[in-house]
Amino acid sequence: MNISIVGAGNVATQLAIAFRSAGHRIIEIVARNEEHGAALAKNVDAEFNSNLKALAGADIYIIAVKDDAISDVATRIDVEGKIVAHTSGVKPIFLLTDASATHGVFYPLQTMTRHQQLNFAEVPIIIEGNDEVTASILAQLAKSISTKVYRVNEQQRQWIHVAAVFANNFTNHFYSIAEKLLNEQGVSIEILLPLILRSAENIQHNSPKVLQTGPAVRGDFRTIDRHLQMLRDDEKLQALYRSVTESILRGRGI
Amino acid sequence: MNISIVGAGNVATQLAIAFRSAGHRIIEIVARNEEHGAALAKNVDAEFNSNLKALAGADIYIIAVKDDAISDVATRIDVEGKIVAHTSGVKPIFLLTDASATHGVFYPLQTMTRHQQLNFAEVPIIIEGNDEVTASILAQLAKSISTKVYRVNEQQRQWIHVAAVFANNFTNHFYSIAEKLLNEQGVSIEILLPLILRSAENIQHNSPKVLQTGPAVRGDFRTIDRHLQMLRDDEKLQALYRSVTESILRGRGI
Repeated sequence: MNISIVGAGNVATQLAIAFRSAGHRIIEIVARNEEHGAALAKNVDAEFNSNLKALAGADIYIIAVKDDAISDVATRIDVEGKIVAHTSGVKPIFLLTDASATHGVFYPLQTMTRHQQLNFAEVPIIIEGNDEVTASILAQLAKSISTKVYRVNEQQRQWIHVAAVFANNFTNHFYSIAEKLLNEQGVSIEILLPLILRSAENIQHNSPKVLQTGPAVRGDFRTIDRHLQMLRDDEKLQALYRSVTESILRGRGI
Repeated sequence: MNISIVGAGNVATQLAIAFRSAGHRIIEIVARNEEHGAALAKNVDAEFNSNLKALAGADIYIIAVKDDAISDVATRIDVEGKIVAHTSGVKPIFLLTDASATHGVFYPLQTMTRHQQLNFAEVPIIIEGNDEVTASILAQLAKSISTKVYRVNEQQRQWIHVAAVFANNFTNHFYSIAEKLLNEQGVSIEILLPLILRSAENIQHNSPKVLQTGPAVRGDFRTIDRHLQMLRDDEKLQALYRSVTESILRGRGI
């Protein structure tokens, strides 16, 4: 397929490279940032274009820009008759109505950086379309770069996004808290890395519910009280420990 | 070295196998549960013994029982002149004083199940001793089965335990919450597994602080409000989302 990509950030870069490797033609990279845009365009044999009002003709337009810029881009481009999709987990599909009557979502569910190349075959891609044909063309495009393609509706996609916040953003924050507590004791987070990796590997094959360990799920209130006591100098952190512990206890009906 | 192990649960099993593979002699497995104890003893060419009052002579006694049983075991055995160590992250070292004047901690920091064999070379082992000679003998034993051996003091070990609760138990609970939210939408947690694995891999090489992503660290209050709104039917879960989000915002001075 002939594809245009709007954006030159992490997601735009990784998608452009994956599409190109799968044999698609990238017509152009459209971006305000000329440095990143032109470099990416060169990298995937595409033209660089900084003008949303003068797009070349592609079959599919992927708008891979920050969430809050999607609406602005969509109102400025006119690609009626073509398919346009954004890459956001959370933004509604109707934002794209002004750009084209056939629109959807192409949401790759993975953390991405611009420089570290991803094995896209393993990246789940979440597809939504405002009609069946659009959804199925976007899914076909997704299947050309990934083995994990999921068709969902808008409500499902938005819950997937909330779930990802718990499973990724919040867990990473807990890694940060662990690092801070260890550093205060002159200990490196290195000591926890095998445990962290193993936990993430374990849930590849088992439900997290059966893997739950620790004082809360054991109902070990002596250890919980001791931990709360240790955390007494940081009231907010102590409250956070208490909230998560209570949530685990509730889950077990304790 | 000649080793006796008290216990026949997950930690006892994994340690016994690792010691045996490293060429140590396991004198006996001491356990109340005859089925597990005798099976483990057979597996590592050891005797099985269910009587704490009639121990055979070993150089080192590893008490790998549940936290709350350590004290009881320690008061019932008398191995004065030998080294005795428990495997707990949280229990104080002095619990072992009655068993022997030379005592310490041999705490493998990894989740373990009885049946899935661990590559112990990669398991951090946290060592503490009531004197320098004891600590150094326990560290030497640890180094015979692992490349990651850490000498710590009691306060450090107890903070490592708190940090592990955040980095492992609490994160696993958030995987459970994610699974529950997805299942309510008819979506499998499978969709999040690559993201979860990648996050845990990423912090093997980078500080979690620089890896933090998501609405909170971006100060994206529109998405945060939307998520809170979506979670309105589960007040407790909504409060938990709010607590962790506020903690991320605080970390960024937002």
